[in-house]
Amino acid sequence: MAFDSPTSRTRVNRLPKRGDYSQKTIYAILDAGFLCHAGFVVDGQPYVIPTGYGRAGDTLYLHGSAASRMLRTLAGGVDVCVTVTLLDGIVLARSAFHHSMNYRSVVMLGKASAVEADAEKAAALRVISEQIVRGRWDDVRKPTAQELKATAVLKLPIEEASAKIRTGPPLDDEEDYALNVWAGVLPLAIRAGEPVADPRLAPGAKVPKYLMK
Amino acid sequence: MAFDSPTSRTRVNRLPKRGDYSQKTIYAILDAGFLCHAGFVVDGQPYVIPTGYGRAGDTLYLHGSAASRMLRTLAGGVDVCVTVTLLDGIVLARSAFHHSMNYRSVVMLGKASAVEADAEKAAALRVISEQIVRGRWDDVRKPTAQELKATAVLKLPIEEASAKIRTGPPLDDEEDYALNVWAGVLPLAIRAGEPVADPRLAPGAKVPKYLMK
Repeated sequence: MAFDSPTSRTRVNRLPKRGDYSQKTIYAILDAGFLCHAGFVVDGQPYVIPTGYGRAGDTLYLHGSAASRMLRTLAGGVDVCVTVTLLDGIVLARSAFHHSMNYRSVVMLGKASAVEADAEKAAALRVISEQIVRGRWDDVRKPTAQELKATAVLKLPIEEASAKIRTGPPLDDEEDYALNVWAGVLPLAIRAGEPVADPRLAPGAKVPKYLMK
Repeated sequence: MAFDSPTSRTRVNRLPKRGDYSQKTIYAILDAGFLCHAGFVVDGQPYVIPTGYGRAGDTLYLHGSAASRMLRTLAGGVDVCVTVTLLDGIVLARSAFHHSMNYRSVVMLGKASAVEADAEKAAALRVISEQIVRGRWDDVRKPTAQELKATAVLKLPIEEASAKIRTGPPLDDEEDYALNVWAGVLPLAIRAGEPVADPRLAPGAKVPKYLMK
């Protein structure tokens, strides 16, 4: 895999010990998230847009309205950067300088292309849906031909990517450890609350098991 | 404010009813987060990097190592896009097509510049620190002159920005409301867990109140 030997563009320059280029690490981070930030350039101006994604094999799928500027731009095969960030905690050091965050992130570079065939499009939408809420796809009305037409699906080969991870307690200057300042990690995670039913829920529709904690 | 009348670059093109350009809305979203994704271009390639930020008045501050590629690039006054995304929930519709997410996001465009003076740098670092954990700055050892030198701080005027917000239940096609499919919102939020003390914590250092729920 290309990311086992990072290119000059994906090498983690700062704090290289935090860099990780193994496919296993990169895929584990991608699989633990479902929201990415996609970066692309229009007239020299970078744009960064949040969007859902799904991974299947060595391909990352994005989707959106066929009318979306981002999707239309990316489908043209321009250079894109897709970044996935999982925030795991705030690292509280004894000095302001050594404060940090614990996180897992992946930065992917490449060029996207449009998925055109309806069957492949539907399969990709299923991948994205299952990445966000596993089990949901089987329950819902599937896309019609017209809905597929209104949906742009992009695929991006996962070829040039790197992961960056920070874990563990703060690393303070040796002389600061004696300070009477609380230090450690405040763990953070995205948590789901109780499902909120649609006011127009059909009588008898029950909260599916995949939404329960 | 410039964002009260969006430019062609910040106008929300898709689903314009979700666009909001008021300063109040934009600042409320910026103030509710502390992690952004900064996009910039090097040799035509967009990069998207997660980083902490803080807002003071009409200025957004970013910081990082003086050796960081991102910080050095941005300090050169290149075009940057800073995006803040707060994910509020997954919107589960009766049809695959109408699934969505509830979120609040801000997209900011501009050019950053380096904060050079030590006093302004320290003040900006305080802003960022307080945005991440309010109350922390007063407890910790402040940056030395050497640490300030090793830290790059950037300021970005909040001039060209837009917010995008989705709230509420799914919007299904009328004929789908009769389907016996559970629909609604799965609320999501970043939650803090119990603080984890540094193994080398000084005896007597107590968990500060600002970390308690």
